[in-house]
Amino acid sequence: MEQPPIGDVFGEMIRDAYAVRTGVGPRPLAGGRVPRPVIEVIERDDGLINGAPADHYLNEPKHWQPHDRRAMKLCRGQVLDIGTGAGRVAVELQRRGVAVTGLDTSPGAIEVARRRGLRDTVVTTVDAYAAGATTRYDTFLLLGNNLGLIESRERAPVLLDALARLASPGARIVAQGTDPYGTTDPVHVAYHRRNRERDRLGGQLRLRLRYRLLATEWFDYLNCSPAELESLLDGTRWRLKSVDDKDRPYYLAVMELIQ
Amino acid sequence: MEQPPIGDVFGEMIRDAYAVRTGVGPRPLAGGRVPRPVIEVIERDDGLINGAPADHYLNEPKHWQPHDRRAMKLCRGQVLDIGTGAGRVAVELQRRGVAVTGLDTSPGAIEVARRRGLRDTVVTTVDAYAAGATTRYDTFLLLGNNLGLIESRERAPVLLDALARLASPGARIVAQGTDPYGTTDPVHVAYHRRNRERDRLGGQLRLRLRYRLLATEWFDYLNCSPAELESLLDGTRWRLKSVDDKDRPYYLAVMELIQ
Repeated sequence: MEQPPIGDVFGEMIRDAYAVRTGVGPRPLAGGRVPRPVIEVIERDDGLINGAPADHYLNEPKHWQPHDRRAMKLCRGQVLDIGTGAGRVAVELQRRGVAVTGLDTSPGAIEVARRRGLRDTVVTTVDAYAAGATTRYDTFLLLGNNLGLIESRERAPVLLDALARLASPGARIVAQGTDPYGTTDPVHVAYHRRNRERDRLGGQLRLRLRYRLLATEWFDYLNCSPAELESLLDGTRWRLKSVDDKDRPYYLAVMELIQ
Repeated sequence: MEQPPIGDVFGEMIRDAYAVRTGVGPRPLAGGRVPRPVIEVIERDDGLINGAPADHYLNEPKHWQPHDRRAMKLCRGQVLDIGTGAGRVAVELQRRGVAVTGLDTSPGAIEVARRRGLRDTVVTTVDAYAAGATTRYDTFLLLGNNLGLIESRERAPVLLDALARLASPGARIVAQGTDPYGTTDPVHVAYHRRNRERDRLGGQLRLRLRYRLLATEWFDYLNCSPAELESLLDGTRWRLKSVDDKDRPYYLAVMELIQ
């Protein structure tokens, strides 16, 4: 097997999931006739491979997880939805009259978000956006487990600094994370140990996504405990204000800009 | 990435799917708490990767596809269910009082089939079973797309000969296949052409399955049209008696032993 070509995995997948859900446009079919569910394939660097149905990226609020609904109430002022994907959260905020920008690195995902009615979108990285944008934000949203985008001990302060540069005074980050350490699954326990032996955080996943013919590059994605998150904030312009862990292993962390 | 270790992919997956469905036993959880759906990952040798929820392997008859229910009425006498998996079909036949043996190469799948109540099982290949068994069968079932097990022009006569050796006079094969040629998806159209250029049948898939840390070896699995099937029967001891293609692209083929 050759290595699969690198491409907009997430965008292709979201486009297909949207076509399956709406019944409009080309979509994966068995034998040219029977719709196939759209599945996100996630490879981890220990060889673990997982599939997850992609449909949840398009869910309406009534099908959201409870912590996503609680996160809505934590938004203040101008919102930047980071990793907006198909605009699941941003479209709902816009519907509620909130000023929201959807940011994603995936052109395909942003295309779907716009088709779903999201008006203010940007296809870029947080770093590039912070370097150029003049808008300032009051709330940064990292939902759908996107606290993972802080990646690692090395990357976290860089990303958090970029957000501070985009922040209005009194800004907050509302992030949903996953505490990975409640598991007894030997595959995951061994993975956490192997990571620590390599000076990585236990839940510092090294992943790539695959969809049909395409793959992403390998990237880090961090599942950390609230205590690990707090220590990652040390020396940054953010402090941990609250953690809502009612839906463990998932949690909502609110971080505040230090004035 | 190293190559994943070879193992009982199907068995591990079916065991987990059964644990998820029954709520009994260890099963994949997110963060040690939230059940994950069990997904079968299928890689094709052109780099295509697909995921498919595994739960259907455990479906009760009311959730079967209509052609599976129609196939029940085509069973006569002593039945050998080939690729019985978790015993989805064989358990139902047994419940109806039919004498049925479930055959599978996966020890893990047969373990689940037995836990679900299937009494007569064998873990082996058709070839090895034909070499040793003294039982003779009136019906061979290849459901769940298992007509694919005829693999190729080279393998089909070998498998069909093994079945003939296991057959009582007047025996039949009831097989569910998929006609792959109704597609306009450029990925599949290109794959069919590439296969033909290599002297393979268009729908002669080269696949491996992956589940969590394990992979299967690469194997051929044939999606063929009824016309291709008929020509594969030339020179064998079987002839095509009927094709029910009411659920296209899927079809039920009945083949009869030539007396």
